[in-house]
Amino acid sequence: MIINIPENSDFSIHNIPFGIFSTKDRSPRAGVAVGDQILDLAAVAELDVFDFNTAVFEKDVLNDFISLGKEITSKVRKEIQYWLKDDTSVLAGKPELFVKQSEAQMHMPVYVGDYTDFYSSIEHATNVGTMFRDPSNALLPNWKHIPVGYHGRASSILVSGEPIIRPKGQTLPKDASSPVFGPSQRLDFELEMGFVCGKNTKMGEAVSTNEAEEYIFGLVLFNDWSARDIQKWEYVPLGPFLAKNFASSISPWIVTLEALEPFRVSGPTQEPKVLPYLEYDGAKNYDIHLEVGICPENSEETVICHSNFKYMYWNMAQQLAHHTVNGCNIHVGDMMASGTISGKSETSYGSMLELAWMGTKPLRMKDGSERKFINDGDTVIMRGYAQKDDIRVGFGEVSSKVLSAT
Amino acid sequence: MIINIPENSDFSIHNIPFGIFSTKDRSPRAGVAVGDQILDLAAVAELDVFDFNTAVFEKDVLNDFISLGKEITSKVRKEIQYWLKDDTSVLAGKPELFVKQSEAQMHMPVYVGDYTDFYSSIEHATNVGTMFRDPSNALLPNWKHIPVGYHGRASSILVSGEPIIRPKGQTLPKDASSPVFGPSQRLDFELEMGFVCGKNTKMGEAVSTNEAEEYIFGLVLFNDWSARDIQKWEYVPLGPFLAKNFASSISPWIVTLEALEPFRVSGPTQEPKVLPYLEYDGAKNYDIHLEVGICPENSEETVICHSNFKYMYWNMAQQLAHHTVNGCNIHVGDMMASGTISGKSETSYGSMLELAWMGTKPLRMKDGSERKFINDGDTVIMRGYAQKDDIRVGFGEVSSKVLSAT
Repeated sequence: MIINIPENSDFSIHNIPFGIFSTKDRSPRAGVAVGDQILDLAAVAELDVFDFNTAVFEKDVLNDFISLGKEITSKVRKEIQYWLKDDTSVLAGKPELFVKQSEAQMHMPVYVGDYTDFYSSIEHATNVGTMFRDPSNALLPNWKHIPVGYHGRASSILVSGEPIIRPKGQTLPKDASSPVFGPSQRLDFELEMGFVCGKNTKMGEAVSTNEAEEYIFGLVLFNDWSARDIQKWEYVPLGPFLAKNFASSISPWIVTLEALEPFRVSGPTQEPKVLPYLEYDGAKNYDIHLEVGICPENSEETVICHSNFKYMYWNMAQQLAHHTVNGCNIHVGDMMASGTISGKSETSYGSMLELAWMGTKPLRMKDGSERKFINDGDTVIMRGYAQKDDIRVGFGEVSSKVLSAT
Repeated sequence: MIINIPENSDFSIHNIPFGIFSTKDRSPRAGVAVGDQILDLAAVAELDVFDFNTAVFEKDVLNDFISLGKEITSKVRKEIQYWLKDDTSVLAGKPELFVKQSEAQMHMPVYVGDYTDFYSSIEHATNVGTMFRDPSNALLPNWKHIPVGYHGRASSILVSGEPIIRPKGQTLPKDASSPVFGPSQRLDFELEMGFVCGKNTKMGEAVSTNEAEEYIFGLVLFNDWSARDIQKWEYVPLGPFLAKNFASSISPWIVTLEALEPFRVSGPTQEPKVLPYLEYDGAKNYDIHLEVGICPENSEETVICHSNFKYMYWNMAQQLAHHTVNGCNIHVGDMMASGTISGKSETSYGSMLELAWMGTKPLRMKDGSERKFINDGDTVIMRGYAQKDDIRVGFGEVSSKVLSAT
């Protein structure tokens, strides 16, 4: 092995995720995470080992690299795996190709043209329906027929490490008839995963569930920040807007779909039967362990949620088939998030709204303080990894501190 | 005058709107519409008359030009007005600077990073609420407090002239409990205007109603294509998605806010009083005549709607102040559409849904056929102009033919 990869590293030889990083002496460029290092792809390209235009590695986003297509991007990933394992490869004796992650700054890995958020966890949709509508009729009539989704704001997607400013907005106090204005009192996270589109479509072109994986480059952890009090007042009839668009946060390394291949599992049975364009073959869910922690300012972290991406009712292939069935075009770099990933147990719910059940069951932090929603100064950390036998492929984390409203 | 401008031209000397065009011999570049001609700004730049980097005129979108700021873009507009009026100016005796509009192909004038659609006509919201909910309680409680809006799809915004493909999707037949799949049976237009953002903000930064006009470069006509049957089934609880994102169409020339200055008028009284961040000073509506025509295939056009942008309950300054009050960032080129612009009279409604009142009052075309919604082969044409004394500033048109589902 060319470099030492710590045991249990998210960024094992099986992973090879792509990202954009910069260092003190050089501007943003492409790299892959290996253990606690980054292999600098712009530097590797100078060795003249690739047979395509490596200017794509000098860009400050991965869109052009991804646009080369899976035939090339998958080959690059495999070559890097091979070189790393071979002590006599082109990477041997060249420590200058590696940068410590602790000495690098991570950036948004892609330019996101359009961002869509789905609502694909049946447990989450049921919890929300139970709280806000009718417990005996929690799911709306369309939910089991449609991977319900809506458009979000692309401009405010941030990479891990960037702080979040508590949003201000209109809310309707209990029993009031007129709204008031001020900082949100119910700031929440949503534990999601997002996939990055890897191939363009033309308008009018539909992607089938069988073709969908060709159009998915890879996945990131996704925190869909939500202001519950703003959302409640604004969202009828056209959906969430200012309650969501102040910020979303993603993990910096895009884990390719190929790296997740060993972790495919079957999804839940879909009953009633879905329409033909949503039917699919094979195992299209992924067994990815997820957790969320809250670290109050100057304190230690408390893990408050353990969930798993495999719980999703609607899978990514169905989401993409649905999104394009009307001819809507997609572009490389487009981000599609899963919706909050909740499981069946109370400790697997993917939002404070559910974990503290609308504030009725506050969570206790290790420092003794309680949380119904997120406080100023709190850092919310999401982590994810897949493990099978001795193969581990992880996402690292998306970690964001909440600053007080300005 | 350097060139002859036909009387009643939308593109009078008072207008000078910016767009992107191409010709057989040259790729897309910036131009301004003057009468039935286009003044080629890339060619004008070669005369060395501008004191900024004129590479912005060689781009295939106007984003970089707009990013120069109003100090420069307004000056360019005024200089062009001056040169066109002066028979001895730098433009004199240079017919090669002009291209006939009939010989040019128009393109998307800007790259749209994010697109937002508002719902700001009280007549439209009341009509929709009356049809789908409760006539005696048509407006939802938040409507008079919030310029309700939602995020739309940026990738599928098209310029006038590009055809629309009828979308397919899920709909719930009357009295059925399960949805069916097929081409939309209720394809509709929505008559809107969209404004193009002219200045970036940073996350956390709010634009006040007083500052808002600095952030608006100009306006276009906007057709927010809608599939009513898909919308009805999918839109709860997160808003319209596939019912809208298959296509939106805009007019190719961006009419600057400065050109619309003579047409400012006061908007409707807002009662109850809005929250302080939505209060505004002065006249912030614009008196712009709007019309919609349908031209069946191989037939003649029937004008079916006359409306006016001045009817809007919420103005653009309020929309922008609301959009950014939570810290959501905006970028140059972002598009914000008004929502359907309906007036009080039945012939001023801005959608087929309202004009034919959910299909109960079909419209008769000049060729004798009837329309409840839009048929395959129909071309929908929207036009807009402002006129005061002998000053006319127009938008041209957005015209799109509907093709059958693929």
